[in-house]
Amino acid sequence: MQRVLAILSYDGTNFHGYQRQPVSRSVQGEIEKALRIIHKAEFWPSTSSGRTDAGVHGLNQPVHFDTPLSIPEDRWAVALNSILPNDMHVKSCQYVPSAFHARYDAVGKEYVYRMNTAVQPDVFKRNYVYHLPKNLDLSAMSEAAEYLLGTHNFTSLSSPKTDVIDKVRTIFRVNITRYENEWTFRFIGSGFLYQMVRILMGTIIQAGLGDIKPSDISQIIVSMDRTLAGPTAPGCGLYLAQVFYERDHLEKYIEEL
Amino acid sequence: MQRVLAILSYDGTNFHGYQRQPVSRSVQGEIEKALRIIHKAEFWPSTSSGRTDAGVHGLNQPVHFDTPLSIPEDRWAVALNSILPNDMHVKSCQYVPSAFHARYDAVGKEYVYRMNTAVQPDVFKRNYVYHLPKNLDLSAMSEAAEYLLGTHNFTSLSSPKTDVIDKVRTIFRVNITRYENEWTFRFIGSGFLYQMVRILMGTIIQAGLGDIKPSDISQIIVSMDRTLAGPTAPGCGLYLAQVFYERDHLEKYIEEL
Repeated sequence: MQRVLAILSYDGTNFHGYQRQPVSRSVQGEIEKALRIIHKAEFWPSTSSGRTDAGVHGLNQPVHFDTPLSIPEDRWAVALNSILPNDMHVKSCQYVPSAFHARYDAVGKEYVYRMNTAVQPDVFKRNYVYHLPKNLDLSAMSEAAEYLLGTHNFTSLSSPKTDVIDKVRTIFRVNITRYENEWTFRFIGSGFLYQMVRILMGTIIQAGLGDIKPSDISQIIVSMDRTLAGPTAPGCGLYLAQVFYERDHLEKYIEEL
Repeated sequence: MQRVLAILSYDGTNFHGYQRQPVSRSVQGEIEKALRIIHKAEFWPSTSSGRTDAGVHGLNQPVHFDTPLSIPEDRWAVALNSILPNDMHVKSCQYVPSAFHARYDAVGKEYVYRMNTAVQPDVFKRNYVYHLPKNLDLSAMSEAAEYLLGTHNFTSLSSPKTDVIDKVRTIFRVNITRYENEWTFRFIGSGFLYQMVRILMGTIIQAGLGDIKPSDISQIIVSMDRTLAGPTAPGCGLYLAQVFYERDHLEKYIEEL
């Protein structure tokens, strides 16, 4: 058996999230269907770096699987793409050591959140950019983001619907840029809890609207009380941008951002 | 009764074209459903500048309708948008003289066709940009476009499936721009026949691929034989960009392009 690492992009609009489900259409379900066909098997498992919610998109989602087939490395993407639906695309595949693990070996992840504050909605962006026709205070949001940096217990800034017990994560960097009415928020951290980026966004937006003071964030974190944080921002604006497996690469990326 | 001119945008992906249909979802069907609700009537007709096919998008589609309601001009868009689905959006509404006609008064139209020639498909653009991973010759395509300019009988460059008898149209301008792998083709003409822009595109692409010589276009036009022209390019890349009702405005726009 050899282990293959595939880098996958997907438009999350028409998926009920990443994770395999008995009935609903999922990203993992489609990949494993393709793997089943290629391997002529009844079931062929895959392991991703993590899950995304319904409507959330993937730009570079790492997924690994094992195979007894000796397909040349560069033909794996062609084989998978010939079967996958057109809202998914394997960007590349490579053979990796069998000890490699798409989830456990991750040293960092980047999520991107896109928002548009134009008065008029853009029908072409409705599934890809959260439309919030409000005036937002960039400096208040940047200040709010500063309070999130570092290592904290993020219980109050993630969904209680999870089996994960250790809720300590490290946020290395939050980068906010604006071009006209289009805003891009980049979150780089050691890892993120269930719905954490969407709740971070909802809370940063509260600061941008003046509904909370940026410094309130310290108290929200310490409280470990989900009800004190902001609402969960819509999934359509969220993208899993990339997963880092090498600390050097992660540090260099953060430095250059 | 007063006549209202609405300017509409729509993502054509999930519509079976513009025109009202008995069962399938159409842009006109959704507008007239909203008008029915607003007027508390069983049927309320509307007239557009023209139709678009399944999958074709609208950036600024003019639509007129008559109403006995005295709703302030700037509230019409709000009222319609509160009912319309989120893949449609009324950008503006204004009262116009009752002699105004969205179709008959048009003096010109602009269509935009978007194409991407990157090797890898982009899952986020699949419904919005035609993906053709080939090398295209820009100068051959520009030369081909030159042969289309002016007044011609476009029988060979439109679909035979139409009741329209007069197939003479004037193309004022074809503008081709490229930014990296993304191509934009703008067609400005007096009007366009059924599937004409998609067949013009299919024929220009043939010239870009070297499958025909640009000068062959003269012969294709003269032949009045649809089978000599190129294939019908996919609807997903096509946008009705704008409709002109004033000759001055049209001429100024062409000059500045």
